[in-house]
Amino acid sequence: MGFKNIFVVGLGLIGGSFAMALRSAGNFYIIGHDKDIQTLEDAKKKNAIDQYSINPSEDLKNCDLVVLALYPKATIKFIKENMQHFKKDAIIIDTAGIKEEVVREVQSFLRGDLEFLGTHPMAGKEEGGFKNADDDLFLNCKYILTPTSKNKKETVENISTLIKRMCCAEIICSQPKDHDKLIAYTSQLPHVIAAAVVNSCNFTLDVNKFAGGSYRDMTRIATINAELWQELLINNRENIVEIIEEFQKSINILKDAIENKDADKLIEEFQKSSNIRRGIKN
Amino acid sequence: MGFKNIFVVGLGLIGGSFAMALRSAGNFYIIGHDKDIQTLEDAKKKNAIDQYSINPSEDLKNCDLVVLALYPKATIKFIKENMQHFKKDAIIIDTAGIKEEVVREVQSFLRGDLEFLGTHPMAGKEEGGFKNADDDLFLNCKYILTPTSKNKKETVENISTLIKRMCCAEIICSQPKDHDKLIAYTSQLPHVIAAAVVNSCNFTLDVNKFAGGSYRDMTRIATINAELWQELLINNRENIVEIIEEFQKSINILKDAIENKDADKLIEEFQKSSNIRRGIKN
Repeated sequence: MGFKNIFVVGLGLIGGSFAMALRSAGNFYIIGHDKDIQTLEDAKKKNAIDQYSINPSEDLKNCDLVVLALYPKATIKFIKENMQHFKKDAIIIDTAGIKEEVVREVQSFLRGDLEFLGTHPMAGKEEGGFKNADDDLFLNCKYILTPTSKNKKETVENISTLIKRMCCAEIICSQPKDHDKLIAYTSQLPHVIAAAVVNSCNFTLDVNKFAGGSYRDMTRIATINAELWQELLINNRENIVEIIEEFQKSINILKDAIENKDADKLIEEFQKSSNIRRGIKN
Repeated sequence: MGFKNIFVVGLGLIGGSFAMALRSAGNFYIIGHDKDIQTLEDAKKKNAIDQYSINPSEDLKNCDLVVLALYPKATIKFIKENMQHFKKDAIIIDTAGIKEEVVREVQSFLRGDLEFLGTHPMAGKEEGGFKNADDDLFLNCKYILTPTSKNKKETVENISTLIKRMCCAEIICSQPKDHDKLIAYTSQLPHVIAAAVVNSCNFTLDVNKFAGGSYRDMTRIATINAELWQELLINNRENIVEIIEEFQKSINILKDAIENKDADKLIEEFQKSSNIRRGIKN
């Protein structure tokens, strides 16, 4: 793969776990950067990183690969601000949950010798931060790459190899635009629904006592990083609003059938959902 | 507890699992009844039951406890049709997912010496039938009892003891009316939402590739027993329609905030959902 020194920016749940998983992927020298000094200390102590960097302008110079584990806007900002500090021919990847704007923006202003590849590990936990980072976070997860015509085939292959060695189950390549459309449905919609289910609880009775497996599974992701998710959703608002409206049509069909005691319609809709769901791997 | 001979009606997922779990709860003679003869053969072969009954009118006479694992309407019908065949002072329990109508109806026409107690094991699987029955189905599940003024304290205690020995984690007592209201929120709403999420997928792109943990968890119960659930939902339509509408208000708050790029409102809503969800045990 040719990477020797790797610079990881943002040692939260994703960046911290990424750094840890890199340990099993090869023999790299890992430099970590974070705005929080305690996080850097913790990451060094846990051997997630070999060294920490307070001043990226100094340390970026020596790094072949830069991994950004920041929110979307902060990702763009970091690259812009450090444009002159990256090593010649360095590869930069991000890990943000939306891709179209980040990839388009960064690729539009990037220095000619650098290369930016958008990536999105489909992994997470309800609680974030380095204290929840784990070298197993990416174990068996799906990992999406969103190369464009500005990416070299060789770079995509090298990053794929690196990520596979980090034990991700499957590498998926997608257009940034398709990624954002699909992720609105498979990830953002479930998060919005989970929050709405929990927030619609206005019982004085004890819900906890009646919460079985279906409720717990459906609402697990209602514990959400509010700051991050408002940015992901607002950035991807056209796609997410469209899919919320599709979902609202579907739930209204069911609601109307229940109100009208239309057993046949309910059976038809549930048979449809059962058939589609059986086609999706667990 | 005083039960010796137990008659289990309906050897599907719930009835079959109930019969199997009874084996670890005591030394009972279990008679099974089902409309499907192959199911009866399978249940006998698997030692879930000691004997099968083709003709309940004969065998009910000897049973101290009758466990009905049928749909709600069929539960009421079975008791009505066999009213003269139950043993004197027998206890009858059901396992249907809605309680108000079943309990009210049955207790209104029940023979004076008999006693009916509504129960609802909060356990299930995506696929039903005896072939999916399992003596572990109730392991660590919550089990709701809905006694009324027509139930003796002793009966509630005896059934609680039996169910605890079947390894359920927690016995919860509730008014039938409260049960149906809460279950609309904690169980029926998630099922309706899961079906609606799956049915709102109109992509030609491959959703399977992008389906991560949140999507899979949220839609697991979209594989649903259509015939059973239309009956549960239509029976409980006032409660479920009310809670669907509450949910629709909540999701519209989020949708509007996304459309209006109202970051503060999104953060407020997500902090609210996170706080509530952290209060619910996993």
